[in-house]
Amino acid sequence: MQRYANLRPNMARLWETLERSAGIGATPRGGLARLALSEDDGQMRRLFQGWCEDAGLKVAVDPIGNMFAFRPGRDKDGKAVLLGSHLDTQIKGGRFDGILGVLAGLEVVRTLNEHDIETRLPLCVVNWTNEEGARFEPPMIGSAVFTGDKSLDFALSRTDKDGITLGAALEAIGFSGTQAQSPEHFDSLFELHIEQGPKLDESRTQLGIVTGAFAVRGFVVEVLGETGHVGPTPMPKRHNALVGAAHVTLAIEETGWALHPTGGKSTTMRLKAEPNLLGILPDRVEMTCDMRHPDDAVVSRAMADFTRRIPELEAKSRCTIRIHEGWSYGGMEFDKDRVGLVRTAAENFGYSHADMLTEAGHDAMHIANHLPAAMIFTPCEGGLSHNELENVTIADIEPGVNVLLQAVLARAG
Amino acid sequence: MQRYANLRPNMARLWETLERSAGIGATPRGGLARLALSEDDGQMRRLFQGWCEDAGLKVAVDPIGNMFAFRPGRDKDGKAVLLGSHLDTQIKGGRFDGILGVLAGLEVVRTLNEHDIETRLPLCVVNWTNEEGARFEPPMIGSAVFTGDKSLDFALSRTDKDGITLGAALEAIGFSGTQAQSPEHFDSLFELHIEQGPKLDESRTQLGIVTGAFAVRGFVVEVLGETGHVGPTPMPKRHNALVGAAHVTLAIEETGWALHPTGGKSTTMRLKAEPNLLGILPDRVEMTCDMRHPDDAVVSRAMADFTRRIPELEAKSRCTIRIHEGWSYGGMEFDKDRVGLVRTAAENFGYSHADMLTEAGHDAMHIANHLPAAMIFTPCEGGLSHNELENVTIADIEPGVNVLLQAVLARAG
Repeated sequence: MQRYANLRPNMARLWETLERSAGIGATPRGGLARLALSEDDGQMRRLFQGWCEDAGLKVAVDPIGNMFAFRPGRDKDGKAVLLGSHLDTQIKGGRFDGILGVLAGLEVVRTLNEHDIETRLPLCVVNWTNEEGARFEPPMIGSAVFTGDKSLDFALSRTDKDGITLGAALEAIGFSGTQAQSPEHFDSLFELHIEQGPKLDESRTQLGIVTGAFAVRGFVVEVLGETGHVGPTPMPKRHNALVGAAHVTLAIEETGWALHPTGGKSTTMRLKAEPNLLGILPDRVEMTCDMRHPDDAVVSRAMADFTRRIPELEAKSRCTIRIHEGWSYGGMEFDKDRVGLVRTAAENFGYSHADMLTEAGHDAMHIANHLPAAMIFTPCEGGLSHNELENVTIADIEPGVNVLLQAVLARAG
Repeated sequence: MQRYANLRPNMARLWETLERSAGIGATPRGGLARLALSEDDGQMRRLFQGWCEDAGLKVAVDPIGNMFAFRPGRDKDGKAVLLGSHLDTQIKGGRFDGILGVLAGLEVVRTLNEHDIETRLPLCVVNWTNEEGARFEPPMIGSAVFTGDKSLDFALSRTDKDGITLGAALEAIGFSGTQAQSPEHFDSLFELHIEQGPKLDESRTQLGIVTGAFAVRGFVVEVLGETGHVGPTPMPKRHNALVGAAHVTLAIEETGWALHPTGGKSTTMRLKAEPNLLGILPDRVEMTCDMRHPDDAVVSRAMADFTRRIPELEAKSRCTIRIHEGWSYGGMEFDKDRVGLVRTAAENFGYSHADMLTEAGHDAMHIANHLPAAMIFTPCEGGLSHNELENVTIADIEPGVNVLLQAVLARAG
């Protein structure tokens, strides 16, 4: 690809698509609330589909609503190189998380079109359904159905907080497709994404070359107490589930600080108390927590240490505490060859870059178990993400988009 | 009232009304879920109204839905003696909390009818609206409107979690009345109630003579953090509002234990986290808490001590913590004369009895600031209340009902 080493995407044109996206589901503080399969998501999908078709791409939608926009290659039987991410956001999310990866994929295609460049392998810009998991759980469900990690029936029957199934939501916005896709028809995946952490921004590094993924262990902690009247029930007679939850939260926080020196963390992110009413001691709390570390063995050890503390936390709070294993993912290395293409491109440009692991979950992590995958991280301001104030400048993302284009060209030939 | 010293209520008849009540809004575990102004509450009110009318009482409903069932006295201009409590329950409440006081009032009237006894002062069995506050906040709103502590407009505009106003809910069950009542037309209030605490049950004492009320200070604690992705955000960059909430909860718990030796307590009873989603550090938690102690000055001091700890809790959790004053009530003595009538009756029967303060909120506490009021507590099993397993036996409540009858006779003449 020496030949096209001077090829550059049109950053102004990419930025304009990001701005258009930022207008669909905009929040007052400059972020996005574009929950998966909401009307806004539908509007964004239609806009994206139009852009793809204008660029000559053929858009296939699979039964879980993943959108695959194909650009043919010279090799008619060649497997397509995927470029993309997701267009859905958190309820108070930012304008770039996921969106950058999809629209940068579109920009790569537009640039190739402009220069009449036909690759050997087909290209395919992809938008995965419900990456965030903010409306339907679990997150990254579109890519999990694509890889077969989750069944279509399971995925379609997920419900949002109003009881609407994912299947019904897909129908409602007209994105319940029939063109199922599967990994064996694809060559590899390149996902460009903002870092969502502060490392690149703080160290003024232009690019993150993602060599693998943190091991993530998610779990639900259930605290069981006993209801009673908050007035007459004396302190020693109480089994206040919120007190148990407080002890658990601080133990999880301590675990996080213990993991921190070697790059890990642990979080209590969600808590629901019952009956959660005035005047009543709550008898049940459900908390969602996770632990993350580069080394899966360290996560397992931290989890075991935390589990061993449960009797102590039970004694302190006079509640029963149960840990329900939830999910685990990550802990893998990305494909050395595809990561190598990213690194070569970064070095050819002379960009400052750092090898890193992704600490967040990404569709690429599902894909990486089935296809060679690579991720490229751009800096983001202050490392802030899943936040309306998430921000990048054109200068922040330009190196990533350039590298994406060159790495894809290097692979697709 | 020597004359009627041998008069006894029909405990089997009273128990039958309690059983009938226990069938309206019954929960699988034997409790009641009869939220204020729900369809079940409407059904219970109509049943109660029918029983009152069958007993020759004239039922007036005021604009906040309080039900006043009048029995005339010999003295046509006499002010009525109120007997009653409330028929609404918590969402997972018991069969006796409140209900016993109303139905024992009805039993007193039925017993007098049976013996053709006409009192000098009129009697009035009362059912106060929305005592629990489980559907509409604040609790004890019906008695607060009756006394003028809260305006009718304020009360009618309270909304439940579905946005339904108290006014609309009253209309829906047909209990939006027009016959406003006010304290100056009444003589006094006698409220029989289960203790909702373990003291009587543990000490095998037959009766609690309530001489006054705990001072109660309720408040909302707001914890403000910052959202961020739970994956890449490193521990030192976090402002997890749930961690702040855990520190607050344990500080409140410590306050409770510090108040415990002198009879007090402190509680975190409700917690709502935002955005409370998978993958996001929560940026806001709202907690409802209270402190209770016999001595208002001690509550004030505990509140001040807790407030002084806030900077330390903020530093530990790297969150901003604000205390919003909510409400305070209680801290008063009940009327010595009416309490004296209860004590005399108890002594005449030879019941074991103990003077105590009410630690829970009761309508009698609103009333006591405007009319002479007294409360009688019966034991309840294990002190359990605001719980489906709340329980009493006929033997537990018989002394209380007997004393209620005699004290009311003593007052009404």
